[in-house]
Amino acid sequence: MGSTFGQLFRITTFGESHGGGVGVVIEGCPPRIEISDSEIQRELDRRRPGQSKITTQRQEEDRCEILSGVFEGKTLGTPIGILVRNKDARPEDYAAMAKTFRPSHADFTYEAKYGIRNWQGGGRASARETIGRVAAGAVARKILQTLYPKIDIVAYVAQIHELKAKIDRSKVKFGDADTNIVRCPDKAAAKRMISLIERTRADGDSLGGIVECLVRNAPPGLGEPVFDKLEADLAKAMLSLPATKGFEIGSGFSATRMRGSEHNDAFEMRGGKIRTSSNYSGGVQGGISNGEEIYFRVGFKPTATIAREQKTVTASREQTKLAARGRHDPCVLPRAVPMVEAMTALVLCDHALRQRAINISQK
Amino acid sequence: MGSTFGQLFRITTFGESHGGGVGVVIEGCPPRIEISDSEIQRELDRRRPGQSKITTQRQEEDRCEILSGVFEGKTLGTPIGILVRNKDARPEDYAAMAKTFRPSHADFTYEAKYGIRNWQGGGRASARETIGRVAAGAVARKILQTLYPKIDIVAYVAQIHELKAKIDRSKVKFGDADTNIVRCPDKAAAKRMISLIERTRADGDSLGGIVECLVRNAPPGLGEPVFDKLEADLAKAMLSLPATKGFEIGSGFSATRMRGSEHNDAFEMRGGKIRTSSNYSGGVQGGISNGEEIYFRVGFKPTATIAREQKTVTASREQTKLAARGRHDPCVLPRAVPMVEAMTALVLCDHALRQRAINISQK
Amino acid sequence: MGSTFGQLFRITTFGESHGGGVGVVIEGCPPRIEISDSEIQRELDRRRPGQSKITTQRQEEDRCEILSGVFEGKTLGTPIGILVRNKDARPEDYAAMAKTFRPSHADFTYEAKYGIRNWQGGGRASARETIGRVAAGAVARKILQTLYPKIDIVAYVAQIHELKAKIDRSKVKFGDADTNIVRCPDKAAAKRMISLIERTRADGDSLGGIVECLVRNAPPGLGEPVFDKLEADLAKAMLSLPATKGFEIGSGFSATRMRGSEHNDAFEMRGGKIRTSSNYSGGVQGGISNGEEIYFRVGFKPTATIAREQKTVTASREQTKLAARGRHDPCVLPRAVPMVEAMTALVLCDHALRQRAINISQK
Amino acid sequence: MGSTFGQLFRITTFGESHGGGVGVVIEGCPPRIEISDSEIQRELDRRRPGQSKITTQRQEEDRCEILSGVFEGKTLGTPIGILVRNKDARPEDYAAMAKTFRPSHADFTYEAKYGIRNWQGGGRASARETIGRVAAGAVARKILQTLYPKIDIVAYVAQIHELKAKIDRSKVKFGDADTNIVRCPDKAAAKRMISLIERTRADGDSLGGIVECLVRNAPPGLGEPVFDKLEADLAKAMLSLPATKGFEIGSGFSATRMRGSEHNDAFEMRGGKIRTSSNYSGGVQGGISNGEEIYFRVGFKPTATIAREQKTVTASREQTKLAARGRHDPCVLPRAVPMVEAMTALVLCDHALRQRAINISQK
Repeated sequence: MGSTFGQLFRITTFGESHGGGVGVVIEGCPPRIEISDSEIQRELDRRRPGQSKITTQRQEEDRCEILSGVFEGKTLGTPIGILVRNKDARPEDYAAMAKTFRPSHADFTYEAKYGIRNWQGGGRASARETIGRVAAGAVARKILQTLYPKIDIVAYVAQIHELKAKIDRSKVKFGDADTNIVRCPDKAAAKRMISLIERTRADGDSLGGIVECLVRNAPPGLGEPVFDKLEADLAKAMLSLPATKGFEIGSGFSATRMRGSEHNDAFEMRGGKIRTSSNYSGGVQGGISNGEEIYFRVGFKPTATIAREQKTVTASREQTKLAARGRHDPCVLPRAVPMVEAMTALVLCDHALRQRAINISQK
Repeated sequence: MGSTFGQLFRITTFGESHGGGVGVVIEGCPPRIEISDSEIQRELDRRRPGQSKITTQRQEEDRCEILSGVFEGKTLGTPIGILVRNKDARPEDYAAMAKTFRPSHADFTYEAKYGIRNWQGGGRASARETIGRVAAGAVARKILQTLYPKIDIVAYVAQIHELKAKIDRSKVKFGDADTNIVRCPDKAAAKRMISLIERTRADGDSLGGIVECLVRNAPPGLGEPVFDKLEADLAKAMLSLPATKGFEIGSGFSATRMRGSEHNDAFEMRGGKIRTSSNYSGGVQGGISNGEEIYFRVGFKPTATIAREQKTVTASREQTKLAARGRHDPCVLPRAVPMVEAMTALVLCDHALRQRAINISQK
Repeated sequence: MGSTFGQLFRITTFGESHGGGVGVVIEGCPPRIEISDSEIQRELDRRRPGQSKITTQRQEEDRCEILSGVFEGKTLGTPIGILVRNKDARPEDYAAMAKTFRPSHADFTYEAKYGIRNWQGGGRASARETIGRVAAGAVARKILQTLYPKIDIVAYVAQIHELKAKIDRSKVKFGDADTNIVRCPDKAAAKRMISLIERTRADGDSLGGIVECLVRNAPPGLGEPVFDKLEADLAKAMLSLPATKGFEIGSGFSATRMRGSEHNDAFEMRGGKIRTSSNYSGGVQGGISNGEEIYFRVGFKPTATIAREQKTVTASREQTKLAARGRHDPCVLPRAVPMVEAMTALVLCDHALRQRAINISQK
Repeated sequence: MGSTFGQLFRITTFGESHGGGVGVVIEGCPPRIEISDSEIQRELDRRRPGQSKITTQRQEEDRCEILSGVFEGKTLGTPIGILVRNKDARPEDYAAMAKTFRPSHADFTYEAKYGIRNWQGGGRASARETIGRVAAGAVARKILQTLYPKIDIVAYVAQIHELKAKIDRSKVKFGDADTNIVRCPDKAAAKRMISLIERTRADGDSLGGIVECLVRNAPPGLGEPVFDKLEADLAKAMLSLPATKGFEIGSGFSATRMRGSEHNDAFEMRGGKIRTSSNYSGGVQGGISNGEEIYFRVGFKPTATIAREQKTVTASREQTKLAARGRHDPCVLPRAVPMVEAMTALVLCDHALRQRAINISQK
């Protein structure tokens, strides 16, 4: 069950980094939504390896095939199966991994849990698994746009290591992040980030950072207390992405150092609507969206795979050393941006359908 | 479905702050676990209002009744129903709330979502709802102790506003937090925190802070990639608690400013076991526990209810002002400690049973 | 999880025949549905013991208390907790059962599964558990009537032992069954059935029979292929009721002896709508309702509890004999009628909400 | 969600009869189970079209590809993706169906529900969808055999139209059914059945019948009251198969005409075990297996597709006539046998894992 996400708009991803391929089955997709291969492919291209000099050089076309659930360009209401074949597999690169646990990877824990693992690459723990999420996210976005034509989901890199971007949240538009390869809308910071990533890679090391995500024009009323609060489902969604270590919404951890009189978002009438003067809540109160901008931040650790030699142990419990060969991302942040957007779309889409189901007096 | 948590060990809470009562139904509890009212009551007493001078003075005995699922002191394997009656209800204190949305509370969003709300107190959004979680958490802890006799779940207050406790994580024991009313194991810091909370309450204001939680002696192998990773389910569990704004595990957001060569946890042999030299991972790798200490932090905002006058609007969309009457917590942190422990126990128990289910060769 | 039913409109029942009480938590109930204690009580009164001379003489008032989720006569959208206390418990009647397995009861299997059981009465396997279902069914019916004002769910006894009622399905109305204590709309047959039940009870024996159920004016489009087909969920619902052995929809088992040319329901235009000329399908095609009358039959075995002496074994594996003391139903059929209706309402309500969720172009 | 089945061993099928292909994703499969393509293929070959003169002549090789979750011949514990390409698609055969609703097919109801359908063949309602179930059933059987080496699941045709086989249930072995093309272990009856099917096909008509299924050596303790009773989940599983109209377990509908004193299964000691003298219960009591043989019967209607001309209406609501062209099964029973076995294996496997999860004292 761990590979299924969502209650009503529900996805199940499958696939290891090596083997037949990776993909997703989407259940609960409303019928008659227009969707094309190219709309899904566009998002996959934003996450694929080899897209720039600062990502891994593993070359994968990541071409998607819709197996079912779409007919003449429209969803049927039946499960949508999407498959991406694995291509650029070089299992020989991974031979050493068969017997050695890479530090801060999932090799040891998969072995501990399952007593077996596909050691050719990351297996199920590979970031390739996120292909299914990103493909499904593209479908979710189409549904959200059908329901709320003005909704906007925008993620971007806000920080790499110590380099913090200066970003006026109210001005960032979808597409701004994609104007540079690090996906940071602050162009000056982006330049420094790219340079830092290149230097770090040359140094055989890796970097972490922060992705920020905004949702504008989501309606009030999304989120299902008490456990499926909107922020709770977003937190789960984000912490389920590889390499994430933290999540904060609205004021986040800075709220812990504020007083109620500062932090409370006063209500006021604005434009004929009930609005809040400030937005420390991050667009969610009591687990339900209030119509304000939803914004949150996700912390990513530095990539575990590094070229430097590290101490570790083998499956036969002997001390050894390991240096990564081959290709890897020195920093996952640029490719994480479409993943964060996809997971956000999945959460919102699920809650949008759930809200429709109970709101029977609006029929 | 938003009031159900867990896959195999699954709880459903019910109840508003005013009305017949609050409670929980626990499904999937293994049979023949010894459990008594008093074990559940002990945890409820740790969360109940009126327990000290720095909590709300609402007096609720919060006496639990086990309605089903337990026979002669042992679980039957059938659903365990637990009920706590609402007693100290003074709906007249809340008359103003019928028509006015309290800032940073859930009044407006419940109205927006459901088109109706129980305005007598917090209704479903009240912290009283957590009674069901804490009661179920006590049961979960018993199951975990049956499976892993040495397991230890310890939460405590690590920070109130700017006051940070100095805590040697490796030395905190269960019970240390309960030696003072703010539930902070650093006694010197605790004193200052209590004093700050008292002054802030006198000032008509409120405070936020951080609860830290440790799990020791959890076995390797808990967590279900790719969505039900252990940290993902913990993040959801914590962000589903009232007033939470952030979650970080292990190195958390500080990981974003580290390099891979610093952050990676080298494997080594220690005491005949595969262990890690450092523990930036926080006991979880690839979404699965690795046998090291699991630790994470949860950020709480300052209590939304404050005595100071605040601007807001009425349900009929008129500007007004509001000052809280009556009783409330100036800082939720002390009472949040048993809630964090309970949610942690629920997550671990669910994953422990899930791991048993698939691990069929160990039968 | 075995005590939860439904995906979107989801109920969890709890309780044993002896102990604090039995009840239900209803999740996913739309807000602003008018519901009163008396509407629920009316259905509970139809299922309660002691209601007539042909049911068990156990006296239970079965008075329900709504604990949560309803405010000023309307649903809040939050979980609805309903509790019925156990009253007329005479555990001494059951002392023998502590050590002896009653034939064709669940004593042995509960022991085999859980290694423990509440032997005071039927425990969890008691028909008292259906109280929660019937209470929730009353709520489901209200929701269905809100969505489809003309919908009608009518169950009745169609057969007791060899006595078959003559019933013109098209003429049975809700209420007809309740004009006599055996709940059979064929008054002549009802008389013979009552007399047979009385004679059988006097003879220390028990009887089975068939309940038939009709749903009129359900809309086309309910049911979720391929697993949650409407008939599949109805079958599960019915076979989850105590004492059921079979389910058939529409033509049922008689279809097995028909040819396609006889069995196919031709489409025709009637009253401006697409209708079928015959209705062997029973109102469901491909797992989805087609707007025709849904009808199905449920087979109940004779009550397992009989006054006659029977051979059995003890928990310590010794051969023994057992004759039921005390009070029991000589035939469960009359009290099964409201149970069948309740389960039908639960299934339809769940599917109605599920259909709303995906039907986004009708917003 | 309607395409997902099972709680712990959970399958999601996808695919229409025309388009990329059909398949399944299996979640919750324990790791280290040996499984090969050929074991899955063997079951698919039993259900594939064109396998004999009495099945449809549509030629599909139905060659399966395992996309994920299996490594070096063993399951990984990760989702198992299985794909079967659609090959022998002749959409031109179906052009008429684009606008006409075939009687007793799902064309009209899919249109009513989704407002769109893949009219090239049966679409999602095609029996091709069961490929995913049969493939998953093969995996489930392997798991069951790992847990209970002596378990046996045997289905066979017990009746075609009026022709009833004479079968001594205690003597039927797995494989007996496959000795003839109608899959009936009574060889004399099989001959008559085959002849009847051939004559009926020549006559442009179709036939229904009954499949019976036995499970031997299932352990006591499987089934989760009160809703997920073993018979309830079996009933749902069977009624989710195309063309099914009824389900009965053990004594089934014949129980309705019996007295308790006849029907009760007395307990006795036999071979050192607690056994029942008779087995009207069908191996399940109170929703839990009791260790006796589980047996049940499934009624199938005559195939809806017939060569004879039938009255129907078009999507534009005009009266028309329709005669099936092309290839179809005159009787689904022979191919239904592996489907019934597969669904049975899925139900039992799910319950076996669920029972393991709660049975923690047996660790």
